[in-house]
Amino acid sequence: MTRDPSRRTGEFARMAAELHRRHGGKITVTPRVNVDTPEDLAVWYTPGVAEVSRIIHENRDASFEYTWRWNTVAVASNGTRVLGLGDIGPEAALPVMEGKALIFKALGGVDAIPLVLDARDPDTFVETVIATAPSFGAINLEDIRSPDCYEILDTLTNRLDIPVWHDDRQGTATVVAAGVLNALKVVGKNPEEVRVVFLGAGAAGLESARFLELIGVRPQNMILVDIGGVLHPERTDLSPHAMDMARRTNGLGIRGGLDEAVRETDVLIALSRPGPGVISPNHVRSMNRDAVVFACANPVPEIWPHEARDAGAAIVATGRSDFPNQVNNSLVFPGFFRGVLDVRARKITDAMCLAAVDALASSTGTPTAEHILPSMNDRKVPAAIAVNVGMAAMNDGVARRPMSLRELQERVSSMLP
Amino acid sequence: MTRDPSRRTGEFARMAAELHRRHGGKITVTPRVNVDTPEDLAVWYTPGVAEVSRIIHENRDASFEYTWRWNTVAVASNGTRVLGLGDIGPEAALPVMEGKALIFKALGGVDAIPLVLDARDPDTFVETVIATAPSFGAINLEDIRSPDCYEILDTLTNRLDIPVWHDDRQGTATVVAAGVLNALKVVGKNPEEVRVVFLGAGAAGLESARFLELIGVRPQNMILVDIGGVLHPERTDLSPHAMDMARRTNGLGIRGGLDEAVRETDVLIALSRPGPGVISPNHVRSMNRDAVVFACANPVPEIWPHEARDAGAAIVATGRSDFPNQVNNSLVFPGFFRGVLDVRARKITDAMCLAAVDALASSTGTPTAEHILPSMNDRKVPAAIAVNVGMAAMNDGVARRPMSLRELQERVSSMLP
Repeated sequence: MTRDPSRRTGEFARMAAELHRRHGGKITVTPRVNVDTPEDLAVWYTPGVAEVSRIIHENRDASFEYTWRWNTVAVASNGTRVLGLGDIGPEAALPVMEGKALIFKALGGVDAIPLVLDARDPDTFVETVIATAPSFGAINLEDIRSPDCYEILDTLTNRLDIPVWHDDRQGTATVVAAGVLNALKVVGKNPEEVRVVFLGAGAAGLESARFLELIGVRPQNMILVDIGGVLHPERTDLSPHAMDMARRTNGLGIRGGLDEAVRETDVLIALSRPGPGVISPNHVRSMNRDAVVFACANPVPEIWPHEARDAGAAIVATGRSDFPNQVNNSLVFPGFFRGVLDVRARKITDAMCLAAVDALASSTGTPTAEHILPSMNDRKVPAAIAVNVGMAAMNDGVARRPMSLRELQERVSSMLP
Repeated sequence: MTRDPSRRTGEFARMAAELHRRHGGKITVTPRVNVDTPEDLAVWYTPGVAEVSRIIHENRDASFEYTWRWNTVAVASNGTRVLGLGDIGPEAALPVMEGKALIFKALGGVDAIPLVLDARDPDTFVETVIATAPSFGAINLEDIRSPDCYEILDTLTNRLDIPVWHDDRQGTATVVAAGVLNALKVVGKNPEEVRVVFLGAGAAGLESARFLELIGVRPQNMILVDIGGVLHPERTDLSPHAMDMARRTNGLGIRGGLDEAVRETDVLIALSRPGPGVISPNHVRSMNRDAVVFACANPVPEIWPHEARDAGAAIVATGRSDFPNQVNNSLVFPGFFRGVLDVRARKITDAMCLAAVDALASSTGTPTAEHILPSMNDRKVPAAIAVNVGMAAMNDGVARRPMSLRELQERVSSMLP
């Protein structure tokens, strides 16, 4: 196995363990009002709060006016597919969800609660989240194994009237689509003409393919490859979502594995299992000139960036912060939820996701080979995404609280840190 | 209906509605660490957090070391019995639970999350809370109708290895027992000799009777009265918990209602439905000399304090902050959970509750007729309760993290606001 050229994974691991233990967690709950006197208690708790309960009892949507619900997101996981670690259970998933909650607040001004659930089967997970939903303004799903995550997201979206987002799916697809859009600008190619191969056809891969179609890539010019080889309609081992994509992609009718699929493609999107060598330099050499390679597995990408570049790739992106071009969901979800919450969306639509793709791609400025996406501490990004997403929600008629563009801009900028 | 002599209930209602709307809630989530650079992200989120997840995967209890779980409590309710409002549902219960979370932090330094559940039946409620339990260090149940709350508390206590507390039951019983203990000191009577009548035999009433027994009141000297009259073993309409108490109390074999039960008693504890006139001045007049009356219904007590005093009561307590002697759970739960969390208790035992009764009674100083309990902004109280409860947990062998008295005192005082 090739060594990590940055040699920093182990260093981050040691630092993370020590600092997590020293701080005993990353977030805390803070009062927003004073409770110094019996009168304070009488206003914020009993007897005064009874009047607030009465108002909400008459109109449940008033819970978004009179409680913290308007700004609150549950970061929900059962820990069945965490990072590169797999099925490690809810307790072990908690530091990841708490980290996500930290980023939600630090970058998006969103009050997020880590909610790790002892709920391995999709039915229990769905029923648990539905039961907790009155507590929250939106739900962010995370690190749930495939194909359970499809059923969970679809059922929750249908049954709840608050937005439900699966960050590993829609979040990843949004940042991948924005990254591809900008990478193609750098190499001077047109989405309508490029050929794209996906390594990994899980939730993230399938949704990324769908989002690339939304930005103009032709489905017949896409090929998906999973552990069983190229996706094609004669395969008998595919989930319904994968079969749907198998029917619409692979216009050339290619059979085989990555060796066959990657030849003469322009873009390679790898969203597979961690480990270098999954993609070889020869795979990259067999691609078209000015190849774009996204090797997104974390913490170890499918091919090290220097190997991909040595093999002729013009642009290489990974999931890591210590290489150029980080494909990082943190670029998207803080701003996305900011917009969703500020217009009090009931649902998340494709148009809202596409609005986020456009905002993220545009807020990069002029992209370059080492800078196809903005850095995660560029504060313009969440603002741009939030406003675009909020406008799209209003256009799609899913906003509980419509407002003008200018009102939304003011609202978003007052809410962002 | 007699008018509220303080005339402030309506004023608090108007202020509460206006202030809740203006502030949009009472609590917020705050980062405890910085996320300014990609390196911060690499430590607190990916890739560094994977090492923390790996450590917890090896030992689930490490979730109390490396995440915010050690200080986190869910304030869980299904809104089936809220304050004086009844069955108003989860959304309308949210401002109450958020208020509780505010007090948890302001008085106990505890990170509490309002968790209102769309889970009317006890099974759904239990399964939902069990599924969410890996997220929290303890569970505080609130405003759940009787008798569901018994089954829910008992089942959760048996199935979870984190503490579960029903504040309307154990919290109320703790403050009532401490109040009675101090009231009897003021009037110079002995718990072993007094006769006590309870009006209301729901969860709070039954548990208060049980706790008075723990502090020395003889069960045969207690009489419980509910809507069907005096509890006695021939009644056929009693729940198992109420029947158990009916068999052990009422040594004189009294039959009838409050008129019969209250005669020649020393203490009247009313934990019933709001509304003045439930207890009449004649009831108080028929009690023994130096009578003690707790009229705890909120927001309107069962008898106004001035009426009870005019009828000869030596000490009157209510649930309200605008009269002397407020019987208020906020005196107990912040310190109780501080102690529970600091020793990482697995369970809540009777000895821990009794330790809280002693601490609360003692920290009043020298009680007087208008000051049988400390005020809720006396910061000595949560500290005294937390230390006593933590020591009791260690004595009972339910503490995950035993420590010396001195270590516990230092820990508690560093954690309290």
